Amino acid sequence: MKFTIQRDIFVQNIQHVSKAISSRATMPILSGLKIVAFDDGVTLTGSDSDISIEAFIPAEEGDKQVVDVEKPGAIVLQAKYFADIIKKLPESTVEVSINDQNVTKISSGSSEFNLNGLDPDEFPRLPEVEEGNKFQLKTDLLKALIKQTAFAVSTAETRPILTGIHWGMEEGRLMCTATDSHRLAMREAAVEGAEEADFSNVVIPGKSLSELSKILDDTEDTIDVTVTNNQVLFKSKNILFFSRLLDGNYPATKNMIPTNSKTNVQVDAKKLLAAIERALLLSRDGKNNVVNLKSLGETKLEITSVTPEVGKVTEEVACDQFEGEELRISFNGKNIIDALRVIESTDVTIQFTGAMSPFIMRPADRDYMLHLFSPVRTY
Amino acid sequence: MKFTIQRDIFVQNIQHVSKAISSRATMPILSGLKIVAFDDGVTLTGSDSDISIEAFIPAEEGDKQVVDVEKPGAIVLQAKYFADIIKKLPESTVEVSINDQNVTKISSGSSEFNLNGLDPDEFPRLPEVEEGNKFQLKTDLLKALIKQTAFAVSTAETRPILTGIHWGMEEGRLMCTATDSHRLAMREAAVEGAEEADFSNVVIPGKSLSELSKILDDTEDTIDVTVTNNQVLFKSKNILFFSRLLDGNYPATKNMIPTNSKTNVQVDAKKLLAAIERALLLSRDGKNNVVNLKSLGETKLEITSVTPEVGKVTEEVACDQFEGEELRISFNGKNIIDALRVIESTDVTIQFTGAMSPFIMRPADRDYMLHLFSPVRTY
Repeated sequence: MKFTIQRDIFVQNIQHVSKAISSRATMPILSGLKIVAFDDGVTLTGSDSDISIEAFIPAEEGDKQVVDVEKPGAIVLQAKYFADIIKKLPESTVEVSINDQNVTKISSGSSEFNLNGLDPDEFPRLPEVEEGNKFQLKTDLLKALIKQTAFAVSTAETRPILTGIHWGMEEGRLMCTATDSHRLAMREAAVEGAEEADFSNVVIPGKSLSELSKILDDTEDTIDVTVTNNQVLFKSKNILFFSRLLDGNYPATKNMIPTNSKTNVQVDAKKLLAAIERALLLSRDGKNNVVNLKSLGETKLEITSVTPEVGKVTEEVACDQFEGEELRISFNGKNIIDALRVIESTDVTIQFTGAMSPFIMRPADRDYMLHLFSPVRTY
Repeated sequence: MKFTIQRDIFVQNIQHVSKAISSRATMPILSGLKIVAFDDGVTLTGSDSDISIEAFIPAEEGDKQVVDVEKPGAIVLQAKYFADIIKKLPESTVEVSINDQNVTKISSGSSEFNLNGLDPDEFPRLPEVEEGNKFQLKTDLLKALIKQTAFAVSTAETRPILTGIHWGMEEGRLMCTATDSHRLAMREAAVEGAEEADFSNVVIPGKSLSELSKILDDTEDTIDVTVTNNQVLFKSKNILFFSRLLDGNYPATKNMIPTNSKTNVQVDAKKLLAAIERALLLSRDGKNNVVNLKSLGETKLEITSVTPEVGKVTEEVACDQFEGEELRISFNGKNIIDALRVIESTDVTIQFTGAMSPFIMRPADRDYMLHLFSPVRTY
């Protein structure tokens, strides 16, 4: 194997596939990054038990020569520091070639690295994704769906199914749901080419989707999504991203969402966020992040938090609208903050059904997103 | 006590004095920040066993009203999160007032914090700095002196005196020296008003000087320095910064510096830095950071590093000048990197006295700075 490659493009793609490589890989070969040189370009592959990523760097991009392959071949190199090594090389191009015994020479200007490689035949194959449910998504929409749900997955391993995000497809609409059983985030969107797709119990690890989001640019390019029994494949122009699915039944979240309400409030999202952030400043060392909310007539909400040894915070937030009964409720302020940070609207509406019932928050001007929170009992 | 203050200036000064406040204070009162309101402004004080900082916020700055004191008084408030609380308040001014029992109300717009305060009479007094050696330094020069020496102090507590930076004044020149016994950094500078100053065994904790550097802006304003038996005081326009001195005798470092040399090399500092940084990439997990250097004729240096299980790096750096014997030496590359990062000159000269002798690196165009390194035995 011998090729010359543009350093910046090489670095970018190494960083992409490195997202799939764990520093604590169970098989030594999986701590490596596989490089294969073809006549028409170079592929890089990284994999762990959950995620596999393959990036293809074509020989030419537009009218610019990116890779010049002198001799095709393959090698697996330790992924650790590999991106750093390439990034710090002195020139704008890098030459990669294999000597005897898999020792790989990486050279650029006055700098030369000789790295011990591993046998590429030992590297596991990419998952086989047979025909499955298929649809398309714009990249920026996919990133929004991930950002607006992934924060709500459970981080506890007691119910592994809750560490994933549930995807269901109904009548051409993709519905994404995440919950840790104390709060729930739901976001839906119309998708293209969904006539062929109909599935209801697909649970993708939250971590997989977060890693995917990091390597995607905020473009309107289309991503092909293929869902099978145990894998999901995201395919963009030059990247294949595979994730395994989680086994098990996801809870029936639809039944959890209250359909009536006793108090409806509309407030400015940024002001509510700032008030709750300040209310949590004194309780930051505590574990429950409890914030108390009380309506003051129909014009204001009072938000308070008390940490006896430190002091008390009192905040007032004006209501844009208020309908229904007087209100007094306590909740985990951090969960509300997480949701407010991904709601992009100016105003939010909150629907309460009593001090001991879950309550709903939505953007005031959109109905494709919903956040549900359990109250906290404080007496 | 009751006053109204500009929020941004309050935050900035809280952050300054917080540098002296340890979250693990031995006395509870020292985890607090002391606020005293006078008719002409507000002072903030923070202190631990090593450092005390007092910042004065004058009522007026130019023709701008900064503080409006309605009623003088004093309080000590928990420093933890205090800067965060003030920073996150909604309006540009903050009102601070004491109610009964030291409870202090901090309000701004629709936000109100009631914080439990402590008795200000329990707060320790600032060190008394009687007359001592006095001189002046420009702020930017002081920051340079600290930056160019503080990195070389010892972090091990086995020889506490080496965790400090030695300051000596001779004939109007201040000489700053730091060493961890494997490398040494020395920087000297002419100072103003040094006729009265003459001292030779002043050792200031490296941490104190690093904290001081963080709260100083890069200006040409003058700082007054007063050195006594056990304290040093840095006095800028509105800040007093006290640090205790370290007890004990600092090693006689002058004798360590070789006066002759067998090989003199001049190279581009940035290229040498980049080559050594790359050479260390493979050994990052190792502990010794050993780099080997060899002269290739009189035109090039070869820098290599080997980590048997990973691979080998070979770098070449062109010599601008080379005089003397052929050279082969090994050293801790990280120490050289630290020094190269604070040398602001384009070229450095290195003087070697043999593979087993300490060697000297200096900026090629300045003689006010010197770095000394021990070689590493590799066989």
